Amino acid sequence: MSPQVFIEEARDGNARAGRLHTPRGDVLTPVFMPVGTQATVKSLSSGDLETLGAQIILGNTYHLALRPGAELISDLGGLHGFMSWKGAILTDSGGYQIFSLAARRKIDDDGVTFQSHIDGSAQRFTPESAMQIQSQLGSNIAMAFDECPPADAPREAVIAAMDRTTRWAHRCLTVAPAPGQLRFGIVQGGTHVDLRQRHLEQMAPLGFDGMALGGLSVGEPPPIMHEVVKAMAPLMPRDRARYLMGVGTPRDLLICIRAGIDMFDCVMPTRNARNGHLFTPDGHLNIGNAAHKTDRRPVVEGCPCEACTRYNRAYLSHLFRAKEILYYRLATLHNLQFYLDLVRGARQAILEGRIDSYVDTALARLG
Amino acid sequence: MSPQVFIEEARDGNARAGRLHTPRGDVLTPVFMPVGTQATVKSLSSGDLETLGAQIILGNTYHLALRPGAELISDLGGLHGFMSWKGAILTDSGGYQIFSLAARRKIDDDGVTFQSHIDGSAQRFTPESAMQIQSQLGSNIAMAFDECPPADAPREAVIAAMDRTTRWAHRCLTVAPAPGQLRFGIVQGGTHVDLRQRHLEQMAPLGFDGMALGGLSVGEPPPIMHEVVKAMAPLMPRDRARYLMGVGTPRDLLICIRAGIDMFDCVMPTRNARNGHLFTPDGHLNIGNAAHKTDRRPVVEGCPCEACTRYNRAYLSHLFRAKEILYYRLATLHNLQFYLDLVRGARQAILEGRIDSYVDTALARLG
Repeated sequence: MSPQVFIEEARDGNARAGRLHTPRGDVLTPVFMPVGTQATVKSLSSGDLETLGAQIILGNTYHLALRPGAELISDLGGLHGFMSWKGAILTDSGGYQIFSLAARRKIDDDGVTFQSHIDGSAQRFTPESAMQIQSQLGSNIAMAFDECPPADAPREAVIAAMDRTTRWAHRCLTVAPAPGQLRFGIVQGGTHVDLRQRHLEQMAPLGFDGMALGGLSVGEPPPIMHEVVKAMAPLMPRDRARYLMGVGTPRDLLICIRAGIDMFDCVMPTRNARNGHLFTPDGHLNIGNAAHKTDRRPVVEGCPCEACTRYNRAYLSHLFRAKEILYYRLATLHNLQFYLDLVRGARQAILEGRIDSYVDTALARLG
Repeated sequence: MSPQVFIEEARDGNARAGRLHTPRGDVLTPVFMPVGTQATVKSLSSGDLETLGAQIILGNTYHLALRPGAELISDLGGLHGFMSWKGAILTDSGGYQIFSLAARRKIDDDGVTFQSHIDGSAQRFTPESAMQIQSQLGSNIAMAFDECPPADAPREAVIAAMDRTTRWAHRCLTVAPAPGQLRFGIVQGGTHVDLRQRHLEQMAPLGFDGMALGGLSVGEPPPIMHEVVKAMAPLMPRDRARYLMGVGTPRDLLICIRAGIDMFDCVMPTRNARNGHLFTPDGHLNIGNAAHKTDRRPVVEGCPCEACTRYNRAYLSHLFRAKEILYYRLATLHNLQFYLDLVRGARQAILEGRIDSYVDTALARLG
């Protein structure tokens, strides 16, 4: 770990603005990472992501390893070359998907055997192979391979998963990363703050370039999640980026930025877009509601995205009802614009020492 | 009809380059019109169509009348305002879709009653209502409402459809068009050149701003269609645009441009794109073929579309296999780029007096 990987530029309460050095340029934090599961942020091209000003996107190791395969992507210039993306890429380790998507999962101390959700073929991931795949993908940030227990796991199971995650973390760090590739460790512990602290104490000294909170937003009530993050974020190393995995709603982002989180990813803006759920500063609207059929207003007045600058709700409503492919792209552009602007606004507020008022005002409007 | 609506700028054999005046600017012919069935060329935004250099697109009256409805579109600024398209729009009359898509169709001399393919509701189109709807849509070119018999219709049925189409054409012209809206008549007659000639003689004097050949490419062998077009195009009024409806393959376009056709529309570039069929000067390729999984080449070297300038076949192959939404847009951009460039190239060749060599060379490469 280089001490210069993450620079804290400003603090405002527990919130902070920072700068994460990657071979693909500095990522300004707090930052939201759009999810590009299968080497595309669903419905968008890399040009669209550039237009949105996305700095870093997330790729899913599990999905890419199964199809088209890490070797193929490596041969074709890594994930950056394959999908023609010039910005930074973080890859998850596959752990979460194996524990949520794959069938006939069998875990042992060495790794996990499972069936592909695509063709049922037998697959095996170990800490070493998960890191090796991420090295082949050539991502700029690789996540350690962890065991992610379900939200309702008993305390004993959470402890076992933590301990295994720690043992696996040591093994992850033995694998050579891609040139310049950073490696982040993952803190588990469910909703038990004492266990989270214990796991953080195990993980922090290992030499990862950044630290993540995993296994949150997996079904527990949001206020519980917020309490865990508020307790944990300030305890995480100040000289490293803090990444809250798989979170969350606009509300979650605001609360967790204030708590001191630097990085987020979530499928919510993209998945919800496809389901008709469009984000606005005053909460969301469902474009499938009849009221929008004749509405001449853009989704959000003043929003710079293509959906809002060129089209109105009536047209989007028509495209959604007619299941036109264009709908999915326009809705995705809008929701990501909203998320990216929300987080960019928070960064600016931190730099200007007004994060509390930014968060409180935004939360009040969201309702 | 204004005698200035269409200007023939150059002739080369029977082929011609022209200029069709519309309230949305001059359309340079020969021209290919991408099909925007439901107020969007499937998967593309109006910005995408501008990037491609599309001059004019086609909207489907049948589809738009059923959903979202002509009144709604009229209230929202017409089809141009609704879909934010600044170029020209031609709308078909709905006749073809009623005869190919609708259920429980019942035709009488006054019009056609049918069931919506969307919700089964009873609908009725007459020549007057079809023109009225197109006026509400505010298209720049409205097509007369015709009866389109199937490819295997007996001669007597073809004659009956011709005669009814002529009677309907008179009624179409009694309806006030939208401001500046041109109206094109449709010549039927199946594959019988004598009937086509007879129908053209009936239709030509009626005062339409342009003339179309309808009821071709509906199942008859392509060489038969080519013979009909070669016989008919030179007989169509020279002072008006000649539009071959629903045609066709790149091969069809080349042959029919040489025969003297000015305007084309077809779902082939867009629909085939979605099915994995990508056009190249050397024929087509099926992106689903295993050979493309590792192919680093663009679909067509030198093609200026986003798919070819930023991505390779391997990536498109992956997106296609993973059924990623982005695939549909990139493939559609490519195929339309190919079609538009093919026809723009033909126009240039006509202006330079080398259409024969252009067509022969292109046909030989297409194979």
